[in-house]
Amino acid sequence: MSGEWFRVNVRVRYCECDPMGVAHHASYVPWMEIGRTEMLRATGRSYASMKEQDILLVIVKMDVRYRKPVKYDDLVEIRTRRCGGGRVKIEHEYEIAVVERAGVSCDEVAAIGSTTLGCIGRDGKPRVLPDELIVID
Amino acid sequence: MSGEWFRVNVRVRYCECDPMGVAHHASYVPWMEIGRTEMLRATGRSYASMKEQDILLVIVKMDVRYRKPVKYDDLVEIRTRRCGGGRVKIEHEYEIAVVERAGVSCDEVAAIGSTTLGCIGRDGKPRVLPDELIVID
Amino acid sequence: MSGEWFRVNVRVRYCECDPMGVAHHASYVPWMEIGRTEMLRATGRSYASMKEQDILLVIVKMDVRYRKPVKYDDLVEIRTRRCGGGRVKIEHEYEIAVVERAGVSCDEVAAIGSTTLGCIGRDGKPRVLPDELIVID
Amino acid sequence: MSGEWFRVNVRVRYCECDPMGVAHHASYVPWMEIGRTEMLRATGRSYASMKEQDILLVIVKMDVRYRKPVKYDDLVEIRTRRCGGGRVKIEHEYEIAVVERAGVSCDEVAAIGSTTLGCIGRDGKPRVLPDELIVID
Repeated sequence: MSGEWFRVNVRVRYCECDPMGVAHHASYVPWMEIGRTEMLRATGRSYASMKEQDILLVIVKMDVRYRKPVKYDDLVEIRTRRCGGGRVKIEHEYEIAVVERAGVSCDEVAAIGSTTLGCIGRDGKPRVLPDELIVID
Repeated sequence: MSGEWFRVNVRVRYCECDPMGVAHHASYVPWMEIGRTEMLRATGRSYASMKEQDILLVIVKMDVRYRKPVKYDDLVEIRTRRCGGGRVKIEHEYEIAVVERAGVSCDEVAAIGSTTLGCIGRDGKPRVLPDELIVID
Repeated sequence: MSGEWFRVNVRVRYCECDPMGVAHHASYVPWMEIGRTEMLRATGRSYASMKEQDILLVIVKMDVRYRKPVKYDDLVEIRTRRCGGGRVKIEHEYEIAVVERAGVSCDEVAAIGSTTLGCIGRDGKPRVLPDELIVID
Repeated sequence: MSGEWFRVNVRVRYCECDPMGVAHHASYVPWMEIGRTEMLRATGRSYASMKEQDILLVIVKMDVRYRKPVKYDDLVEIRTRRCGGGRVKIEHEYEIAVVERAGVSCDEVAAIGSTTLGCIGRDGKPRVLPDELIVID
């Protein structure tokens, strides 16, 4: 698998940056969450609607490699794709790219990452994903 | 003064919500910052470019009235306008409105707020705002 | 009323600071929440336990006056006291003071603030506070 | 190497929790930062003082494995130790353990993680760590 990237942009917020003038490394974590959330929404579902059906996705694993700084006010493109999983897990990989800085277009991958989500029910126990989210590699 | 609202939308992030399932009250603070930042950008300037000229805007006063909850995944419209100021201060007022919930359009003001920014130089001392940002009421 | 301050310390986190090298103004909001939470805990209750009894406190009003910057790694003393309220509301006021900077003791009020909390039930409707939280001015 | 854990406690903040009522997975990232910052302070140095000497530590790699939820108001013990590095890198590993819940002591590892920091100068170029921070495995 590992098909096309799903792309969504965010403008780097002032409060996401640290005294070095760059995005704090914790700020990338919500960006990856936005990436997978919006990718899901584009397929016609939403986490919000899944929650109402008692299908909860919890993160079990995350890693990030930071290559270049992201600066305040940069326009960041979050690229997300499924890269594995199965019947109870979803694996995503991500590229965090700067696509505009100081009003000038660019394209520089600042970080790469991956996450693994597990599917649980309201009782906290593992459950099988809805059919359309199951990916067999 | 108090002219037209400048409008910009944000999707409520999962990490901005608290155990009551609604946006945490601290989350509104960066939204108001986004409102005044994007309003400034729309006039052809940016805080990032002002900073390079050693013009810093610091917050001296903020207040928020919370009327209705904002929920996870809501689409929020941040409405911002200048409402006063002078030669060294900028006053803004804000409406935080929910304009889409669960895929359905709506229009409900969830909070109102105001901020006062002071202009300082790199030395931390007050300085006069750039001409185009001065508003005489 | 307005009796003694309840005091609790926090060390300013790197991720709470912005590119000016000072605590971002949104960071003060969780500090005030910590102040009133720990003040409540010191009386033998906790918000966590109140929630289990379906007593929810929601913020309806907040204001902050910022006087001096708070820097990364400063030790901040959050001072909290009740300053009003009644049967369905709790009003607090706060001082955010820097009490140690770069290893040296000091005592400088960096900001003052206030909040008003309303008491609601699980149904979102106003309800009377537990007896011991009611303050008649 | 991999000696004793350095231990520091944090109380889980309300704003660090998400609509599932547990600490949001991004909240663990500042906790690990607090762990390594306080471990450094305990040796008589601080990141704040290193910065003044133009020694900057930037994160290049982070991973976290989430095993159990951390709840609002839990007391969390952040355990940190050096686990590798060399002349230009510092590697840490972490345990995030819940040591008190609802007023009752416990000891449950909720997550494990690791980070790699690189040392750079003000010019953004790699530089050798101060002698006392170099660890030869």
